[in-house]
Amino acid sequence: MNIAKSSKKRVVIVGGGFAGIACAKALRKSGLQVILIDRHNYHTFQPLLYQVATGGLEPDSISFPLRKLIQDYPDFYFRIGNLEHVDQNNKTIHTNIGDLTYDYLVLAVGSKTNFFGNKQIQAESMAMKTVPQSLNLRSLILESFEAALLTKDMDKRHGLMNFVLVGGGPTGVELAGALAEMKKAILPKDYPDLDIRNMKINLIQGAPRLLDAMSDKSSKAAEAYLKKLGVDVWTSTIVTDYDGWEVKTNTGHNFHSGTVIWSAGVQAQKISGLDQIQERTNRVKTNTFCQVADQKEIFALGDYAAMESTAYPKGHPMMAQPALQQGKLTGENIIKMELGLALKPFKYKDKGSMATIGRNKAVVDLPRIHFQGVLAWLVWMFIHLISLVGFRNKLVVFTNWLYNYFVFDRETRLIIRPYKNKKVNPF
Amino acid sequence: MNIAKSSKKRVVIVGGGFAGIACAKALRKSGLQVILIDRHNYHTFQPLLYQVATGGLEPDSISFPLRKLIQDYPDFYFRIGNLEHVDQNNKTIHTNIGDLTYDYLVLAVGSKTNFFGNKQIQAESMAMKTVPQSLNLRSLILESFEAALLTKDMDKRHGLMNFVLVGGGPTGVELAGALAEMKKAILPKDYPDLDIRNMKINLIQGAPRLLDAMSDKSSKAAEAYLKKLGVDVWTSTIVTDYDGWEVKTNTGHNFHSGTVIWSAGVQAQKISGLDQIQERTNRVKTNTFCQVADQKEIFALGDYAAMESTAYPKGHPMMAQPALQQGKLTGENIIKMELGLALKPFKYKDKGSMATIGRNKAVVDLPRIHFQGVLAWLVWMFIHLISLVGFRNKLVVFTNWLYNYFVFDRETRLIIRPYKNKKVNPF
Repeated sequence: MNIAKSSKKRVVIVGGGFAGIACAKALRKSGLQVILIDRHNYHTFQPLLYQVATGGLEPDSISFPLRKLIQDYPDFYFRIGNLEHVDQNNKTIHTNIGDLTYDYLVLAVGSKTNFFGNKQIQAESMAMKTVPQSLNLRSLILESFEAALLTKDMDKRHGLMNFVLVGGGPTGVELAGALAEMKKAILPKDYPDLDIRNMKINLIQGAPRLLDAMSDKSSKAAEAYLKKLGVDVWTSTIVTDYDGWEVKTNTGHNFHSGTVIWSAGVQAQKISGLDQIQERTNRVKTNTFCQVADQKEIFALGDYAAMESTAYPKGHPMMAQPALQQGKLTGENIIKMELGLALKPFKYKDKGSMATIGRNKAVVDLPRIHFQGVLAWLVWMFIHLISLVGFRNKLVVFTNWLYNYFVFDRETRLIIRPYKNKKVNPF
Repeated sequence: MNIAKSSKKRVVIVGGGFAGIACAKALRKSGLQVILIDRHNYHTFQPLLYQVATGGLEPDSISFPLRKLIQDYPDFYFRIGNLEHVDQNNKTIHTNIGDLTYDYLVLAVGSKTNFFGNKQIQAESMAMKTVPQSLNLRSLILESFEAALLTKDMDKRHGLMNFVLVGGGPTGVELAGALAEMKKAILPKDYPDLDIRNMKINLIQGAPRLLDAMSDKSSKAAEAYLKKLGVDVWTSTIVTDYDGWEVKTNTGHNFHSGTVIWSAGVQAQKISGLDQIQERTNRVKTNTFCQVADQKEIFALGDYAAMESTAYPKGHPMMAQPALQQGKLTGENIIKMELGLALKPFKYKDKGSMATIGRNKAVVDLPRIHFQGVLAWLVWMFIHLISLVGFRNKLVVFTNWLYNYFVFDRETRLIIRPYKNKKVNPF
């Protein structure tokens, strides 16, 4: 990797998501040598990927170059690489760009979409965890309307305009709302020669209610908002198969659809050399200091890790907040270890959760108060804006949101990279 | 194509570039049925592609959805399609999505990069005429630095940091300037562990001077600006071959380079069914009404067409202005034909030309005055901003330019779609 070992101890952070960059920031003045590795050269602000997929935001404005992030940090290095194996005995990681020894190893590799073993669903449906995936989805949505225009077969046309969103968590709810707003304000104008009333948005949720990690009040409000926007909500329904065209469910109610978006679950990335045993999410167990098993110098954070606690027996929620908080704590704890001080255990500060359904429509659960509507929507926007990495990103996203709000539009609906991976081609 | 023929006559416009959209606008209130066809669903503002390639602007902010452009135009239709053949006898075009009859046919298909028949150069070098090409180039530039970091072979490292730009017209000059500014302000901070002084930018021009379509004063100023920024300018030099690594020239001075950007010439797109004879640029000849040969109902515009005139015996410059002006005129002339009025001949109004080299550095040739420096740079920015299609695009580009100016940065340096097409892999 062409990085010389200095006299200082070396921290290797794998993953530039919320946990990884929080840890890097905390180590800025540690005096340690820090090497950050990621598959991409940018940090992705995942909570806004659904706006990229629906043409509301440029992909570039929710991403941030990792090299820029650590530009001013002394003795920090960045490499684009894939972690392939952790050799705990030799304190070495193997990657596609070479081996690297570590004194401390911070694993913040995040999660990926969980298809629960169904290979056919995995091959045919769309995930939305990365920028490229969101751009693929944006292309497929637009291509579907272009194809619907051309066919005279009514079943095909309706299936191409039928969107099936699997998973009623924040991702599914927010995407359903965004598609419904496209249907209302944009698509009828863009496709005057297509009857957009035939577009359907189906949100399928296995649990009895949407947003089942949120309050009952928020859940009900979200469902009401979606129904008002014309989304068909199917609770207590599980998608059992999808061949690229036919969506099968456990209730027997099936759909024809060219676009299935799968956000029904996530699971930790798999790393060779570590035991990942936490149920079906595959996370690795840590102690309250985010340390993995007996390896005191290996830390696992965020979506990748499951720290058991009384309040969260299955691990903390796989969201930005636990990742950010664990990243910061781990950076601080590594400095403490160097100084021979006692480590601080992790205590999750639940700042609440929220989801936006559309213009003026959002739900917010703060620890002591739950609220909905315009105020919730403003809070949602404010929190997301200040959380975005980079001043330019904040500026550009804010500009786009203002524009989109006042002109009822989303202009980045460009098919820049056509999506052609579908095996069953309904076009 | 699923478009019913109405009682009105039908105009088919092929190409949504400057000429095509100017023609569509002029036909807005014509009462005719208008069908616009393009390979992409967006208009590209080509003069700013180099800023996409160098991380200064999002691709989405210089592109505009064609469907949105004609949203309010009565009886206008849009289709994504490739023109495959023009059947003049049956007044029908063949495309990959079906056949279409026309009463008037407007061919505004533009140009593509001209490699003058050298297949090896074409396979290995980068072009920059479309958004996807610019994104590929952005990826390759960034990937080259990531790869240079990893190799200990000094020849490889230097070759990866050696950029060879072939063609000293506006594209080559602007791109060279942008790369030089990246070298100065961004790359040393992004790659503290790489000696960026070894990065070279070579601008190779066949003619004896850069910007040879501009005034001698502008040409000299541009060369001086580039040299000040550290660009190596090679005039009267022709690149004869490139195998992905070794660049050969007619002077015997060769280079090792992982990135050759080819902007040494353009040629008209080829359309089956039409005679394109105009020298090596392959353009189709038109009369002064932009009509092709004896087919009074077929028009050829912009880069695709060469209208011979005393001032421009080889056809008008392959730039935005002639395309815009011919597009507008042709729309108006089609309306005149319908009304039985005499057609207006094309008279090119040369509004001048300009190129920007970098911060506060540009050259402007207006018909009566040539000027350089800060004023030229401000004029360049103003003209480009007002020429951009779409208010949101103007807003986002302006925001980015302001930001980039004050913080000396270009933040959209993301490798979103890795470029992996190179056959000789120097990495």
